[in-house]
Amino acid sequence: MKKILVVGSVGIDDIETPAGKVEGVPGGSAIYFSLAASAFADINFVGIAGEDFPKEIIALMRSREINLDGFEIVEGKTFRWSGKYHDNMDSRDSLLTELNVFEKFTPKLPGNYKNSEIVFLANIHPQLQLQVLNEIQNPELVISDTMNFWIEGDRSEVWEVAKRSDIFILNDSEISLLTRESNFLKAADKFLEDCPKLQALVVKLGKYGAYVTDGKEEFFIPAYPLRKVVDPTGAGDSFAGGFTGYLALKGNYSFDEIKKAVIYGSITASFSVSNFSIEGLKNFSDDDIQDAYKMMMKVIKM
Amino acid sequence: MKKILVVGSVGIDDIETPAGKVEGVPGGSAIYFSLAASAFADINFVGIAGEDFPKEIIALMRSREINLDGFEIVEGKTFRWSGKYHDNMDSRDSLLTELNVFEKFTPKLPGNYKNSEIVFLANIHPQLQLQVLNEIQNPELVISDTMNFWIEGDRSEVWEVAKRSDIFILNDSEISLLTRESNFLKAADKFLEDCPKLQALVVKLGKYGAYVTDGKEEFFIPAYPLRKVVDPTGAGDSFAGGFTGYLALKGNYSFDEIKKAVIYGSITASFSVSNFSIEGLKNFSDDDIQDAYKMMMKVIKM
Repeated sequence: MKKILVVGSVGIDDIETPAGKVEGVPGGSAIYFSLAASAFADINFVGIAGEDFPKEIIALMRSREINLDGFEIVEGKTFRWSGKYHDNMDSRDSLLTELNVFEKFTPKLPGNYKNSEIVFLANIHPQLQLQVLNEIQNPELVISDTMNFWIEGDRSEVWEVAKRSDIFILNDSEISLLTRESNFLKAADKFLEDCPKLQALVVKLGKYGAYVTDGKEEFFIPAYPLRKVVDPTGAGDSFAGGFTGYLALKGNYSFDEIKKAVIYGSITASFSVSNFSIEGLKNFSDDDIQDAYKMMMKVIKM
Repeated sequence: MKKILVVGSVGIDDIETPAGKVEGVPGGSAIYFSLAASAFADINFVGIAGEDFPKEIIALMRSREINLDGFEIVEGKTFRWSGKYHDNMDSRDSLLTELNVFEKFTPKLPGNYKNSEIVFLANIHPQLQLQVLNEIQNPELVISDTMNFWIEGDRSEVWEVAKRSDIFILNDSEISLLTRESNFLKAADKFLEDCPKLQALVVKLGKYGAYVTDGKEEFFIPAYPLRKVVDPTGAGDSFAGGFTGYLALKGNYSFDEIKKAVIYGSITASFSVSNFSIEGLKNFSDDDIQDAYKMMMKVIKM
């Protein structure tokens, strides 16, 4: 089994969806990612929070054996985000973004993290993602994520992260924004041409599933058939968690394993969105994962 | 092989998409459907057009051995529609709709059509769809289509058509509109509950593929991976054509065959949208279909 180094955001969120409203709940890309990925592999966590970050979440992470040596708790308030989802949950308005302690965040990698074989650069400023890549020596696999906010504001740095990654994950509106090509398949072709180091590109299609290609083969997988989505926050991070966790567990990054990893990503994403905040990631078992995998096989089998 | 009776619209369209603009081109749900379905099975065509409808399209239909005994050409102008697609081609504005000879259309079924085993009720006023159902005796399989326009204006009649159908085809925004349920899977559950006669429900997901369920099993299939969409007009009708045509060819309506039919529908839809109007449906061969089927198998195979 390989170890995963993850660097990303840690937050406290207020979330309103058509299913209800929660306040002061844990969030952030690194939190969602780690809780999903730790079901599969060992995690070396890098992030920053203020003293107001809930102690029980830190205890939960410890109980999952997530290494928190790189989790800085500093004086001040944790990054805050507040968002409201529209009726169909496909889009949302950000009502508040307060960087707080995240403003002065510089990822510091403890010495015992340097041997992590897999690096996951969760959705944070691409400048911070690049800093991490400069600090770590020759990881086996670099997987990166981003979002429209960074593509709009820091396009060239997002491209630099992509060029230095082995696997890049983004959604169809993000890849269209980044490549200026509306057809997501053509956008993926373009992306792979511009990033010759990439072994695979994963395009998330929201409730419709995901598309993955290495430029030679391509594969579609539907989303897990979920009758009730409660809170889409962290869906992408939880997807990345199951995806990266499975690859770490296998220690094999062939396209066939990457295809399976997409399915595990869809499964952990479905656990995540079935409840508010990280609630859906708290209690799932290996059996839940295996049952969901069988279900996924059923809905795609000819 | 079973015979398919199709009733639908016949039109002349002006179409603008990001890929270009065409004027006075053939269109209408029954035209797209028949050209797609005739690659698989025998078609008994019912529709109405004015004297301005292009003779070469009628010749093309004859060359496909489509029975045109029920195709009325009457004095006056053919139904006209003009539309402009938005940049992402996911939505469009209707700029003009002139019913013309379609206004007085009453489907008349020639005597030699009455033994059609399969009835396809293409996208027309649900009142007309119901008239056809009242005229034909005990078909083996009734497959119906609709659109948001009829759901908004004639909801209860659309429901009546659905309740009298064996297979219903619509897209995810239409099923949400009809059931008032935004999650398309839950909407499908509801739809099947309300229509106990239904053997299968097909929910088209546009460029993301399609979902089909009989209430016990469910299946997802991606769209054919098309790098360039030229004109989405008629995509749904062409999908229904390949879908229904395949079932007619097989004469077997098991859920396993219905799943394959969804794939053939995706294939004929991809031929249709790869060029303007019906151009993409003019020249495809059996080999093209089989190559596309192999491609579809490749992109869904684990």
